[in-house]
Amino acid sequence: MWEQKEIIIKNKNRGFHLITNDIIQILPELKKISIGLLHLFIKHTSASLTLNENSDQSVRSDFESHFNNMVPEGKEYYSHTYEGKDDMPAHIKSSILGNALIIPINTGNLMLGIWQGIYLCEHRNKPKERKIILTIYGN
Amino acid sequence: MWEQKEIIIKNKNRGFHLITNDIIQILPELKKISIGLLHLFIKHTSASLTLNENSDQSVRSDFESHFNNMVPEGKEYYSHTYEGKDDMPAHIKSSILGNALIIPINTGNLMLGIWQGIYLCEHRNKPKERKIILTIYGN
Amino acid sequence: MWEQKEIIIKNKNRGFHLITNDIIQILPELKKISIGLLHLFIKHTSASLTLNENSDQSVRSDFESHFNNMVPEGKEYYSHTYEGKDDMPAHIKSSILGNALIIPINTGNLMLGIWQGIYLCEHRNKPKERKIILTIYGN
Repeated sequence: MWEQKEIIIKNKNRGFHLITNDIIQILPELKKISIGLLHLFIKHTSASLTLNENSDQSVRSDFESHFNNMVPEGKEYYSHTYEGKDDMPAHIKSSILGNALIIPINTGNLMLGIWQGIYLCEHRNKPKERKIILTIYGN
Repeated sequence: MWEQKEIIIKNKNRGFHLITNDIIQILPELKKISIGLLHLFIKHTSASLTLNENSDQSVRSDFESHFNNMVPEGKEYYSHTYEGKDDMPAHIKSSILGNALIIPINTGNLMLGIWQGIYLCEHRNKPKERKIILTIYGN
Repeated sequence: MWEQKEIIIKNKNRGFHLITNDIIQILPELKKISIGLLHLFIKHTSASLTLNENSDQSVRSDFESHFNNMVPEGKEYYSHTYEGKDDMPAHIKSSILGNALIIPINTGNLMLGIWQGIYLCEHRNKPKERKIILTIYGN
């Protein structure tokens, strides 16, 4: 079985956001799958997807602090600067974290660990609409 | 063909560990596959999976040194501190390295490069039991 | 449907290179797929694959500058030094960026965002031949 759909996430400020429920909610097809995989793919180069701790907001705000420290704005070696100070760091953060996830499915459920949640990582200052393609495949 | 199973890796200290043989050993199903993929998914947010050099232990210990330098403990901007100094850096390292791998299968074998091995990256101080879900699919 | 083939990329200097067209060109099989995925896997531990901005060369040169800053050569904590100053940083960069990509396919086309291109990231000083395994699967 193959299914593919797109979800649009709106109005997320710069930072790390838990979107596990948004994703599961639009995937009733999960219930038809005995063994399979869910692929999530964000169609952008200044936002990313990752899995991390799903409980404490402080983890997500520390992600924002650390990534701003590890990939700072305004470094003298940036030459791609005409789209704003946040632009080049956003591209780099996006490739460090990655633009895709694959999560196993078993008997109709995502096999996430008890602490794992899906993060949308928005690296630009101005909230943008972000498109994620979801592909489900399995038996 | 779809097969899914879980492997539990125990007693790995903080650091980078080669587990290629542990994985292959529990996957006799590989031999049934002409073309396919193997998906590995670690169900945790403070450990990760990566592929890297499979020969020299010094590469794995340099990984530990560099990640400790790039994602240091005790930074003043961490607010999520109540689970220990190693906790928040462990979450960040886990998202940088990633929690999943997909490896091509051809005529019953993983198509790893000659120098590629599967690393379990343990980012916490106290050894934990780590669960990895293996999903094989193909023809 | 499953198809698997290998592409060899030659003569790329250290740096970040756009290879989207090289990949699409050797995949006429894409046109047979209604819904599916393309998996790209680089069989090396000192080069990597990522998706990022496909238009402006300055983005790719800033990637090179930033990764050289974030994973410097000659750090005193490296013990794996006998293959050259660029070797250990190359291994680390490779695991940060990752050795695989998965891109959704719909009605015969890769579903890349308008700004997304496939980068081959060469982290060694001397150009090497790089092997990428392409696996297409879908309906």
